[in-house]
Formats: sequence, structure tokens, C-alpha cells
Amino acid sequence: MAPEFETLDAFAALMRTAPGPDTTAQAGATARNGQLTKPPGSLGRLEDLAIWYGAWRGMERPVLVAPQIVIFAGNHGVAARGVSAFPAEVTAQMVGNFQAGGAAINQLARTFGARMKVEALELDRPTADFTQAEALGEADCVAALRTGWDAVDPSSDLLVVGEMGIGNTTAAAAIAAALYGGGGEAWVGRGTGVDDAGLAVKRDVVDAGLKRHGDLRGLAALSAFGGREMAAMAGAMVRARIEGIPMILDGFICCAAAACLETEVPGALDHAVAGHQSDEAAHGKLLAELGKAPLLQLDLRLGEGSGAALAIGVLQGAVACLSGMATFAEAGVSAG
Amino acid sequence: MAPEFETLDAFAALMRTAPGPDTTAQAGATARNGQLTKPPGSLGRLEDLAIWYGAWRGMERPVLVAPQIVIFAGNHGVAARGVSAFPAEVTAQMVGNFQAGGAAINQLARTFGARMKVEALELDRPTADFTQAEALGEADCVAALRTGWDAVDPSSDLLVVGEMGIGNTTAAAAIAAALYGGGGEAWVGRGTGVDDAGLAVKRDVVDAGLKRHGDLRGLAALSAFGGREMAAMAGAMVRARIEGIPMILDGFICCAAAACLETEVPGALDHAVAGHQSDEAAHGKLLAELGKAPLLQLDLRLGEGSGAALAIGVLQGAVACLSGMATFAEAGVSAG
Repeated sequence: MAPEFETLDAFAALMRTAPGPDTTAQAGATARNGQLTKPPGSLGRLEDLAIWYGAWRGMERPVLVAPQIVIFAGNHGVAARGVSAFPAEVTAQMVGNFQAGGAAINQLARTFGARMKVEALELDRPTADFTQAEALGEADCVAALRTGWDAVDPSSDLLVVGEMGIGNTTAAAAIAAALYGGGGEAWVGRGTGVDDAGLAVKRDVVDAGLKRHGDLRGLAALSAFGGREMAAMAGAMVRARIEGIPMILDGFICCAAAACLETEVPGALDHAVAGHQSDEAAHGKLLAELGKAPLLQLDLRLGEGSGAALAIGVLQGAVACLSGMATFAEAGVSAG
Repeated sequence: MAPEFETLDAFAALMRTAPGPDTTAQAGATARNGQLTKPPGSLGRLEDLAIWYGAWRGMERPVLVAPQIVIFAGNHGVAARGVSAFPAEVTAQMVGNFQAGGAAINQLARTFGARMKVEALELDRPTADFTQAEALGEADCVAALRTGWDAVDPSSDLLVVGEMGIGNTTAAAAIAAALYGGGGEAWVGRGTGVDDAGLAVKRDVVDAGLKRHGDLRGLAALSAFGGREMAAMAGAMVRARIEGIPMILDGFICCAAAACLETEVPGALDHAVAGHQSDEAAHGKLLAELGKAPLLQLDLRLGEGSGAALAIGVLQGAVACLSGMATFAEAGVSAG
């Protein structure tokens, strides 16, 4: 039964009830890993990754057979200020493309055997311009958190959340600046490809937003600057945590949503790994704030969950090795 | 019909007949990539990767449905000198493990839908100790090249070659040092996990080999230092080139075999990308000599083709995006 949350405080309280990893499964997976037919440590980061996954799934020999990708789309008041190389109509057009199976994320979902779902959040009702007012405000933020919460299939064994929203790198930069300081200068990048003039506009818009709302932490930053798609991503992340579904984080926008949760309740993202470091200028810095080392770094800057989806393959490989390899004893191989 | 090569010179001549990429397909794939529903360049390295693959497959919209992994195993005379943390018997034991499906590479092959084959090359007849004589010599080197040549299924559309051979990071370091200079100091690493004393032994063995054979280039270096498994990898690489089968290179040993080809005929490895940079100390340096940027860097140091196999997923994703995405016109999305 879905828990009730009518306020951001209630949502934060719910976050604090979330369970941690299964330490028995973690110990079992670690012990098993040490007996597999390979030199100790020779699978590098795959070893820790598979053990982490097993711990969050509560399985010493985990399986990964039901990954889910959910794409959330939202429109932003600040898009009207010229912060993007694309017009705001593209958000709805790309939702159509996702539904028709024509976007990059559709191809990646198919490649790695993930089910995919698209949730468009009131595209005809953009958030407020955050230089003038709270972008979401509590009621809209809670509603979007709920949309994200409800989008997660509890029978999934891995979750990736992606996004589409013209203007949302600007919102993400404002969130990062509000949470970690440094102003627009430190956090604004070219997004899907603005020129130098567009970049200057983005910085000014972020700085104006910071001036209006001041430094913020946690869900308050999400409410002040966030798009509906970002709040929905956050809602899905918390649902995944409570259902014991590990996650792979995507790029700058996804990580900005994650950072609102992590600053609200430290450790809230322990069930998530960083799928990649994108080409968006400040993503590396944001990952460092989150304490997450990316699995991939392939200069992607598309969003849609694309970098995280690509990392599903790495996680599938890691889990297959932990759970499928023979031990030295089983294989009759000398352990050195 | 298989071409004849009875000598290393004949093999080198065959290498020089190899075709290049299909520039028409390359141009078509590049044009198509520019029309897909994403901001230009936003798929980062996936874009160049997919175009490269299409060019070598001769297809503007390539498919990747039949990857093949071949693991070659060989034993090394220098293993008797204490250069490995594992006894030489482990080579044969691991061949049994590959055949039984218990090794890491078996799990990765299954994860990414690759067929896998194992070729053990005269395990009861180790190469000569290269500090005393040529490890292979021309006749054995040609025979091993032929084994590799014959192992490639020409109906494959991607090839990964992996290896198993106790002592083979020492042989690979000797090859790299002979080709590029710097001595044992520059190229020796811990392999599957030798301690400081073992590392010193490896350096001394490499330096003794260099003193005996001098600087070498190309196939001569392979013959002087190489294991049978390394010559077989080289044979498979050339066969793949001639059949129009793109490749993903694995770690230090695979790249040392590749470097023999590349220094024999510059450009011989243009049909290959670097799957990963391993944790073996000098692999990054060897990749730089080959002019290849790794797709992954996850601290693997297992061999067996494991890093390359993991990169199959990245390539599958890249190809799926190029060939499966809708264009702006098809999807009715504004191109900015």
C-alpha cells in the first residue's frame, strides 16, 4: 500500500524510514567473490559493484533480470529566458519520440533488456520562472514526487530514471549552486549545446534565482528550482530505496535531483551508483559532492537516462561474474 | 579458401593486402548520425564508435548480432623463472574451466550474446625461455598464427580475442620493451599479482631477454618473445581484418600482440578499438603507443578477453542508437 505524504516534511520523514543494505548477503557475496576462479581483485571495480548489488538485493548470488527505465518529462518557466538551444516544444515532441520508440534511450533499453516507461508531467503547465517565484512550490513538488513514486514497478530489480525537459540543465545548475555554493559560474554548462551568449544568459538566470531564494538544502532546493521531471525522479529514487531496488544514476540533471535527497537525508543514495560522467561541465564536480565514482566516461551529454542505461551492461556483466563463475574448488584450479 | 603463409615474410605480405574501411558506408553513417533525434554530438564517443563500426562492416545502418570471442592458451618457458604468482599448471586448469563454462569470460560472453571458443596451443610444450633462445622461432610462430587464423568464424560481425598463459605478462612486457624501448623498468607490472620480489624477477628476465635479442620490430618481436597464444591472437586479428570483422582489443597481452602487427604494418589495427585500460601498470602506455583511447577503465587485470567482452555492450548500444533512432524528420522533432 502506498504511504501517504502530503507535505515535503512527510516525504523527508518517509525517507528516514528507508532500510539499508542486507549485511548478511553482503558478507556472503564478499566471501563468494574471494573463492572465484580469478586472481584476487582482478575483476577490479566489477567485484565491488556486484557485491554492492547483492547487498541491496539481499542475495549472495544475485540475479539481474528485470531492469526498469522510467523517463520523466517536464517544462520549465526559465526556458522562456533563452537558456536552451532548443525551443520548449521539443519536450513534448521528444515524449512522442520516446513513445514511438525512436529516441536513443529506446535503443539502449532494448539493447540491455530493460522495460521502459515514459511519464510526461503537465507539459502544458511549465514550472514558474525561478527568478520570480518558487519553480514548483510545495504542492506541485509533492504531486511530482508522487508521480515518480507511482511510476516504479516494485517487481523491478534495477531502476534507471531519465529525463527530458528543455531548460533543465539550468534548473539543475541552480540546485547544485544552492546546495553547494559557487554560483552560476561554477555550475552552468552548455547543456544540449548553447553558444557563449546562451551560456552567459544561463549564468545570469542561475545567479538571479540564487539571489531570490538564497542557499537551500534538500527538498527545499528541489521545490524552489526543480522541474516536475526532477521531483518525479527524486520520488522514484526514494521508492526504489524503500523497495530494495538498486539504481544507476544518469547525468547532471539526475544527479541534481539525487543531491536534493542526499542533502536532505545523508546516505539516501547509498542504493545508487553513478552510471557515467557526462560531458556537461559540472557533472564531475556534482558526482564528487555525491561521493560517487562514475562507471563510464564517454562524453555523453544527452540525458534521457542514456549514460545510466549504457552502464546497465557493465552491472549485468559484474553480476553474471559473481553469481555464475566457478570457485577454485569447483573447477579444480590451483589458487596460487 | 585459406591463403598460404609458410614464413613470417609471407604473413607480413598478406597483411599488406588487407582492405581499409568502406568510405561510402562511413559517409552514409556520418550523414545519418547528423539527422538523428539528439543534439549534435550529444552521444559523445558512441557516435564515432558506431560510425567506425559501420565503416568496417560496409553498412550505413550496421547491425551487430554475431560477436565471437576466442580464448587462446599457451605456456611460457619463462614461467619456470618465477615470474608469476601462479604455477604453470593453472593454464591447463583454466582451459578446463573455460570449457566447463566457469570462468569470468564465460559469464561475460553469455551476458552480451557472444559465441565463445577456446584454443589450447600445445600446453605440454612451453615456448623456449626467451632469455636463452627465441621463445617461438619462425616455424612455431607461423603455426600459432595459423591456429589463430583458422579460429575466426568469417560469419562473425565482431571479434574479441582473449588469452590465458601463466607468465604471459612477462612476455608482453618484453615485446613492448623491444618495440618501444625503456627496458623492463618501463613495461613490467604485477600481472595477476606478484609481490615486490616477483616484480624484480620479472624486470630482470625482461632485461635479460632484451640483452639477448636486441631491439626488434613487428613479427620478429613476436617470434623472439611471444607465447603461442599471443601469436594466435595476432593471426586472428589479421584474419578479422581481411574478413571485414571489427575487433575490440583487450588488455596488456592482447595489445602487445597487436603492437607486433602495428609495427610490422602501420594501420594494421585500424579495424580495432581499445575495449579498456587495465590495471596492469604499463597498459595505458601501450595503448598510447597504439594510438587507441580505451572505452572502459574499471581496473580489471584478469585477461581472458574480459575487458573487451565488457565493452561489447558499449558497442552494441552505440550501434543500436545509430541504426535504430528516428531522424528529426521522421519523428517531427524541431532540430533547434
